[in-house]
Amino acid sequence: MNITIVGLGNIGGSFALSLKENAAEHDVYAIDVDSNALRSAEQDGVIIKGFTQPEEILPETDLVIFAVYPLLLKSLIEKYKPYLKSDVVLTDVTGIKRSIIGQIEPLLPESADFIFGHPMAGRENRGLKYASGEVFKGANYLFTLTGRNREPNIRMLSSLIERLGFRNVSAVTPEFHDDVIGFTSQLTHVIALSLINSDDVERNTKQYTGDSYRDLTRITNINENLWPELFIMNKDYLVDHIDRFKSQMDLLKEAIEAEDIETMQEMMVEARRRYHDLHDLELPESD
Amino acid sequence: MNITIVGLGNIGGSFALSLKENAAEHDVYAIDVDSNALRSAEQDGVIIKGFTQPEEILPETDLVIFAVYPLLLKSLIEKYKPYLKSDVVLTDVTGIKRSIIGQIEPLLPESADFIFGHPMAGRENRGLKYASGEVFKGANYLFTLTGRNREPNIRMLSSLIERLGFRNVSAVTPEFHDDVIGFTSQLTHVIALSLINSDDVERNTKQYTGDSYRDLTRITNINENLWPELFIMNKDYLVDHIDRFKSQMDLLKEAIEAEDIETMQEMMVEARRRYHDLHDLELPESD
Repeated sequence: MNITIVGLGNIGGSFALSLKENAAEHDVYAIDVDSNALRSAEQDGVIIKGFTQPEEILPETDLVIFAVYPLLLKSLIEKYKPYLKSDVVLTDVTGIKRSIIGQIEPLLPESADFIFGHPMAGRENRGLKYASGEVFKGANYLFTLTGRNREPNIRMLSSLIERLGFRNVSAVTPEFHDDVIGFTSQLTHVIALSLINSDDVERNTKQYTGDSYRDLTRITNINENLWPELFIMNKDYLVDHIDRFKSQMDLLKEAIEAEDIETMQEMMVEARRRYHDLHDLELPESD
Repeated sequence: MNITIVGLGNIGGSFALSLKENAAEHDVYAIDVDSNALRSAEQDGVIIKGFTQPEEILPETDLVIFAVYPLLLKSLIEKYKPYLKSDVVLTDVTGIKRSIIGQIEPLLPESADFIFGHPMAGRENRGLKYASGEVFKGANYLFTLTGRNREPNIRMLSSLIERLGFRNVSAVTPEFHDDVIGFTSQLTHVIALSLINSDDVERNTKQYTGDSYRDLTRITNINENLWPELFIMNKDYLVDHIDRFKSQMDLLKEAIEAEDIETMQEMMVEARRRYHDLHDLELPESD
């Protein structure tokens, strides 16, 4: 089938590379405003052809993958609507679902099937030059199904996604998605930002860091044009997760102040149990 | 010279491996209560000989590296004192300095020179079997000098540490050490513990995680027999860092609640600047 990727940045480029490597029977095209990126991808053989004018390729496209900023999606759908092929399948990669689905669904032509998706494979570096099919391997993928989605299309898209190397491909409600992503992705970014910004820059901290500080601040190389809107679109869940996190932190702080070793040890044993569960590891005997 | 490593766990074992690889002219011995670990290290050629009785090797030892739990250090010094060679140099690897130095210095024989040190190369896995000289490469090292330390010994030890692959070897005051480590190491562990323990375990979160959650929780595979005492010994600085972090987090939370995109973007731009400084990277033009 013909697949068109809209937005040939980091995620869109990674889709193109991964499709070429793992599902080469499909013909992959791209739409982008940046004609240099399109020419570069054509020359590298990553896409067959790139277009700046969507009407030149959309009428022949069976699957459209939108890899664009969330706030762009609505205007693109409005613009692309007249050119979409009948029975086209569309999907996206945006990190927040309730408000996106609410914006997009009313705009869709009757025959179009938009299956909203979220590959949990971000990278801290932006742009096509950092794209890689490798980042998808073993990563999680979430679909948020709606009443409109058709079973054969869901199966086709899930199967394609699995071939790209994703491991856990789950279908959840938009509410569940936004809740859990508010925790695993948005809260972690809030924490990392708050950590690096609470540093005393006068002391040249980088001479005194270990792996832990580098780990906890890696995601602070953040795209300020994307994340504020993600935070705002999910602020109910996100603020709730921030508050839950702060409550846990206060319990630990109180134990430290009270020199309550037993409580601290209980928290650490519980954390270690969760760490092992997260990584599917056997919990060793305590030493 | 003769070097004896006390405690052949993860850090002690890494010292032994790294000394063998990078400073093979020295004779390396070890003291441990675990005779199996000693035999195993002897058989692998990582140490010349291991001892469970310290008096059998201390009188011939020029440099003692204590790689033991902080609370053990005082009792070991009391026990080892009669057997220490005249003009012996001692060092440690404990993550907290003010209280350790306060406990140890009064016990030392006149001729012994204890140069307190902290290799910032922890690993989440415990024990000799995870030891590796590789973890030292490019890592930071802090010495906390006291008025007793002698210049030739400082030079000897610093030079040895640099040969093991450490990059930034700094000498700082015990107060500065405990302050900055309270931030880069202890606060990060408090955050990671609070994050993983604020998860809702019912929802099987691991199916919905990306790199960011795995990064921020890696250090939760924590040793509950070590960390509570480290937290307590540094609680003044640590609680201060927790409070500063919480203030930053509250500022970001307020901006999210107020949908204040401009403030969020300022915080993200500042964080990204700090990220690039931390990794010695050029800050790219904003896109």
